[in-house]
Amino acid sequence: MDKPLILITNDDGVTAPGIRHLIKLMRTIGDVVVVAPDKPQSGMSHAVTISSPLRVNQLKVEPFYKEFSCNGTPVDCVKLGQKVVMSRNPDLIVSGINHGSNASVNVLYSGTMAAVLEGAMENIPSVGFSLDDYSINADFSHVDSYILSICNNVLQKGLSPYLCLNVNFPAKQAEPIRGVKVVRQAQAFWDEEFEERTDPRNRKYYWLTGKFVNVDKGEDNDEWSIANNYVSIVPIQFDLTAFHAIEQLKQWTF
Amino acid sequence: MDKPLILITNDDGVTAPGIRHLIKLMRTIGDVVVVAPDKPQSGMSHAVTISSPLRVNQLKVEPFYKEFSCNGTPVDCVKLGQKVVMSRNPDLIVSGINHGSNASVNVLYSGTMAAVLEGAMENIPSVGFSLDDYSINADFSHVDSYILSICNNVLQKGLSPYLCLNVNFPAKQAEPIRGVKVVRQAQAFWDEEFEERTDPRNRKYYWLTGKFVNVDKGEDNDEWSIANNYVSIVPIQFDLTAFHAIEQLKQWTF
Repeated sequence: MDKPLILITNDDGVTAPGIRHLIKLMRTIGDVVVVAPDKPQSGMSHAVTISSPLRVNQLKVEPFYKEFSCNGTPVDCVKLGQKVVMSRNPDLIVSGINHGSNASVNVLYSGTMAAVLEGAMENIPSVGFSLDDYSINADFSHVDSYILSICNNVLQKGLSPYLCLNVNFPAKQAEPIRGVKVVRQAQAFWDEEFEERTDPRNRKYYWLTGKFVNVDKGEDNDEWSIANNYVSIVPIQFDLTAFHAIEQLKQWTF
Repeated sequence: MDKPLILITNDDGVTAPGIRHLIKLMRTIGDVVVVAPDKPQSGMSHAVTISSPLRVNQLKVEPFYKEFSCNGTPVDCVKLGQKVVMSRNPDLIVSGINHGSNASVNVLYSGTMAAVLEGAMENIPSVGFSLDDYSINADFSHVDSYILSICNNVLQKGLSPYLCLNVNFPAKQAEPIRGVKVVRQAQAFWDEEFEERTDPRNRKYYWLTGKFVNVDKGEDNDEWSIANNYVSIVPIQFDLTAFHAIEQLKQWTF
């Protein structure tokens, strides 16, 4: 029986421990192709490279395993993986494991999750994995069985058209993970500031800083789930239409 | 009576004819602050600059008018506008006029529309304007009354929390625009290829190319509207949860 063909990418770059962990897991269940950024691409969202040439660098070719880096964004990686590197569409696209949560509105800034949405736009089952721990030395050992179980579910049952999954894991704690919650995206925001500094030439510059503020009082969301040591799964889509607002806006006169 | 405070940005850069046209229009109804990228940032989506310093360059200060450029993305411009440049939150954020349509799935790649979504995340009424004509010399003369009418509606009536508008105009045609349609995002995709070339050092590189394919058979969407010489307005939101899929996924065993 043919093994499923799995495309792996991320936004922390091909050398990040998170993607290395994901590669190791995926090689136990599939024929794996990695196309990942050659440098960190966090916060790149759904950016695509249209003004500079894209390069693909072959790092490793073995039976059932190929690894490439690319000088573009995570979305570029998915497109190059499909159109340049692979001879057929993958059965599954996985992205991550991201060093840091992509729950709530972080999904919009995330390159990891943009890669997953790009997969959904191509109608390929796609799942993003993120750990609520930004450390480069984060412990990923508690997530393996969940990643394998989620991927096997998706490979066996498929996903509805144009749907993909945003999976977030709590950071490793003394107690084991309590289970899985299928939930909605929490209502939260970044309360941001810019730190103003002055360079040696006496010109001002700014660094973005901020504090994540969760204003969601519910328990059926991703923030509550990971804060309570559950794995959160949010099914997400790329149709941004606010259907509930259409009738109201039709009353306006232009 | 105080004039409304309006923040303007785009993704084609501060010198693009589209934003110059929008600035001219907005100055007739408000106190205007421009914070726009100092170079083209098309396709940057919701990217934020976190690994390099941000610079803000003051270009013009007049009564009721201030203009700045920034070396970041459109989303950086909105954040810098609010947190560094302006002393209070704007009453309205407008982005564009984009040279090229941001209807259908283009909303996900667009820096113009990411700026608008960023406004919505800050709960500021925000509207993105795009013209279905990629030419730098595009004719914007047929859209003025619609832009003013849409902005006045939003200023007077507000928008529901966390909602923003994706407005697309048909390219200038012999007949005048037929009116406004409040519609949903069309189901379409980019059928993409990479053009492979070889550089003078004999290394391969790739350019993203593609053809936009509209598979939506309906008439209640943005693609149909602009193809039929209507202005399309799609109310959009940044909650990506596919609520219809939650119950189904809860049946899975992990």
